[in-house]
Amino acid sequence: MVKVHAYATPNSVKVPIALEEMGVPYELVPVNLRKGEQKSDAFKAMNANAKVPVLVDQAILGGADIALSESAAILVYLAEATGKLLPKAGVERALVFEQLFFHASGLSPAFLQAFLVKLQASAAPEAAARALAEVNRTLGVLERALERGKFVAGREFSIADIAHFGWIWRHESVGASLEQTPNVARWFSDVSARPAVITAISKTMALAQ
Amino acid sequence: MVKVHAYATPNSVKVPIALEEMGVPYELVPVNLRKGEQKSDAFKAMNANAKVPVLVDQAILGGADIALSESAAILVYLAEATGKLLPKAGVERALVFEQLFFHASGLSPAFLQAFLVKLQASAAPEAAARALAEVNRTLGVLERALERGKFVAGREFSIADIAHFGWIWRHESVGASLEQTPNVARWFSDVSARPAVITAISKTMALAQ
Repeated sequence: MVKVHAYATPNSVKVPIALEEMGVPYELVPVNLRKGEQKSDAFKAMNANAKVPVLVDQAILGGADIALSESAAILVYLAEATGKLLPKAGVERALVFEQLFFHASGLSPAFLQAFLVKLQASAAPEAAARALAEVNRTLGVLERALERGKFVAGREFSIADIAHFGWIWRHESVGASLEQTPNVARWFSDVSARPAVITAISKTMALAQ
Repeated sequence: MVKVHAYATPNSVKVPIALEEMGVPYELVPVNLRKGEQKSDAFKAMNANAKVPVLVDQAILGGADIALSESAAILVYLAEATGKLLPKAGVERALVFEQLFFHASGLSPAFLQAFLVKLQASAAPEAAARALAEVNRTLGVLERALERGKFVAGREFSIADIAHFGWIWRHESVGASLEQTPNVARWFSDVSARPAVITAISKTMALAQ
């Protein structure tokens, strides 16, 4: 069975969501971030970047052993191994990658920054306002994408929806609201109701209990 | 000919480097960021995220018209269209995506943050030190990858090297040094000497003149 080293975090939850959607059996291995387990030598041997999630595939899905980090890279790996949730070619495929990288480089760092600023009791109010403004700007970019299609990269549910869902699932924790972005709110409601998503969230939250 | 809407920036330069390496003819279209041209309605119709670069392919490389944003998504699109600089399968392919997403979500936001802090005359010294510490941490992660192989995702030059090169090309502008990461310094020297890289940098810098 493939193993997912993870914790109850926005980046971790993406991988079990993908595995549930694809119908691939997996085992979740808890990495307790509160105890700093991601900074242990054993964990850093899998991922020098000291972050969850990490997928360990011992030649089950792919043809060889691999310990793979970066949640979106794991989504691409799983999609290509199973042939699911990533169009094979054309504009449809390119738009999935555009959203995956917009997520990784834009929306995700904006949400992370806003989350970190909220944790800092000493942070200046302007810093908090600036961080939330960038969160709202990235939600506006996603709103434009969702005006054009039911899902973030077009008509079909894809790994790009799973990537964005990770942080938007936690939008309240950064003080963001979806009221100004009705298409994002509609999409969030649709994705949240998928049985695979509900199951994956439940299993991921159990890691922190 | 494909068109690349770009300026003299770390993200822009990746696309001409890839096109030169792949031997694909292209036209650079300047988007003057100093004049805010990326925020015009015409540009935002191509990319709602208001950032360069954008690749416009009128069914030349791909089978259909597309205006594609996100530099790393453009690299993947070009690699798949030409069959170059991205392994077709296996661990080799997965490691390229791991590095592309580590670049997009880790190294690139760290460099951008350090660059923005340097621009702010009023920034607190602790903010500058914190930003530079994260730059150095991401350079340390890259050093681990380059201890294992000549290039960032293994033995072969790939689009992941092009992605990382964008910001490391500008490491001095964020106050970073490569002295503590000898493998990164060696790799930077190797990549900088590639004829395609030299040509692409020259054409990209000309956009700001």
